Amino acid sequence: MTETDFIAALRALAADPAARGLADDAAVLTFGGETLVLTHDVLVEGVHVLPGSDPADIAWKLVAVNLSDLAAKGAEPVGILLGHMLGEGDARFLEGLRAVLDAYDVPLLGGDTVKGGAQRSWGVTALGRATHVPVPSRRGAQLGDGVFVTGTLGAAMLGHDALASVGEADTAAYLRPLPLLAEGRALAPLVTAMMDVSDGLLLDAWRLGTASAVTLDLDSASIPVADMARRDECLRWGDDYQLLFTAPAGSTLPVAASRIGSVVALEHGPLRLDGRLLSSDDRLGYTHG
Amino acid sequence: MTETDFIAALRALAADPAARGLADDAAVLTFGGETLVLTHDVLVEGVHVLPGSDPADIAWKLVAVNLSDLAAKGAEPVGILLGHMLGEGDARFLEGLRAVLDAYDVPLLGGDTVKGGAQRSWGVTALGRATHVPVPSRRGAQLGDGVFVTGTLGAAMLGHDALASVGEADTAAYLRPLPLLAEGRALAPLVTAMMDVSDGLLLDAWRLGTASAVTLDLDSASIPVADMARRDECLRWGDDYQLLFTAPAGSTLPVAASRIGSVVALEHGPLRLDGRLLSSDDRLGYTHG
Repeated sequence: MTETDFIAALRALAADPAARGLADDAAVLTFGGETLVLTHDVLVEGVHVLPGSDPADIAWKLVAVNLSDLAAKGAEPVGILLGHMLGEGDARFLEGLRAVLDAYDVPLLGGDTVKGGAQRSWGVTALGRATHVPVPSRRGAQLGDGVFVTGTLGAAMLGHDALASVGEADTAAYLRPLPLLAEGRALAPLVTAMMDVSDGLLLDAWRLGTASAVTLDLDSASIPVADMARRDECLRWGDDYQLLFTAPAGSTLPVAASRIGSVVALEHGPLRLDGRLLSSDDRLGYTHG
Repeated sequence: MTETDFIAALRALAADPAARGLADDAAVLTFGGETLVLTHDVLVEGVHVLPGSDPADIAWKLVAVNLSDLAAKGAEPVGILLGHMLGEGDARFLEGLRAVLDAYDVPLLGGDTVKGGAQRSWGVTALGRATHVPVPSRRGAQLGDGVFVTGTLGAAMLGHDALASVGEADTAAYLRPLPLLAEGRALAPLVTAMMDVSDGLLLDAWRLGTASAVTLDLDSASIPVADMARRDECLRWGDDYQLLFTAPAGSTLPVAASRIGSVVALEHGPLRLDGRLLSSDDRLGYTHG
């Protein structure tokens, strides 16, 4: 069965709104008197992690991508659980793990260590406490809203290329992404929809538009990119972990962000770029593996 | 670095009492006004799962072993997150997943699906709500307590052997373990320490004695085993997911369980069997991979 079919079957199996965690960045549920936000991301050697990667960078990225999902929910981290496959470089892995947990003041709560083999993988579950209810999702974009993105897109791409000695960009942008936790918390009360940009701006914008049943009308010239000569790639490469959100057009934003378009009524697709309606046949970004 | 060193380093990294989840069966934390119990277990093809296993059984076991950790805490399941590596037999995997979630009325909350390769692995995070505080742990056994175990040990071993056409036992005891959630909840208010028997009765009893800083003095003849002729193996094989607990000697137990020994003052080791102090050099059970 295909990945798409499998995920569709999982969603059907999950009770709504619990199904959210499979369609969205995180699961959201009430526990005690508060709102718990849960994410689980897996990294696989050779799929999400370059062969020969420093295990310290793997540990950093593993935790950071989960924290980025919490950021998009405006949640503050409560802790993580780690599923670790033992192997070469575990001392370095621990160094990276300590570094990222210290940087974001996140406790390690527990987990499991297992013996691995041919292909290693690692999983992290991150728990967060919502700081604003309703918790932002991909679904709330409203007609007339502005579309915004934090930071610059493509920095991770340039960092990735620099690892292969193509260019001299900062490799940290690729190896050690910085989840925008404070920004997400500041934005949560204001946004109508929000997600992190993990798989490429256009693909993630497509998903947000689809979830909200609107069309996002984007202007490519207004999207900040790390390399103007490679604008198209910057819009399609992932791993930047910026925040993409919609908010009422006149909003005063509490964080620096660029307005990159507007929310319009649903057309024949959820995404328009420079006046052209994009199709799912366009290569929009990184499709999940 | 060795597995033991890695786990010790992880525990040092984790803030206590958060470190509990690495040393114990689960992490326990207060959230909202309630107590959240979290477990994360990973299964690896060829390590925890026999090659050629029915993916439906893998899914069942993956969820069941996590629910068993909740059972040992007297927690009621709130839901699970699934980390799934795509591959052959995914339709069967979904069938097993649906079956176990239905059997225990547990919602699927979210997770991640990834492309895999040479060696598949799966992770589940289970969330539970404590029904009794303090939540039972491995640490509370008191001098004079009785030591008890539910059910019969070795049924999973016989089921495993039957898969290889050795004997005619029920293979379900190995393939589809039944987490004792109701029993764990009933016992939680009464026990001084509790854990599930995942890696073999003697090894897990050793761990409980160590955590409680006592010696468990066990009488092998009183331990119910599935095959009297293979008593020694039954005491060392894991995967039965029975509950091992200590409780005041005169307690009226709310569930069927056998008294298999007593808690005595710490001797030169945490476990005595039929009068003989066991050593860590004895092969006591399945050491985690």
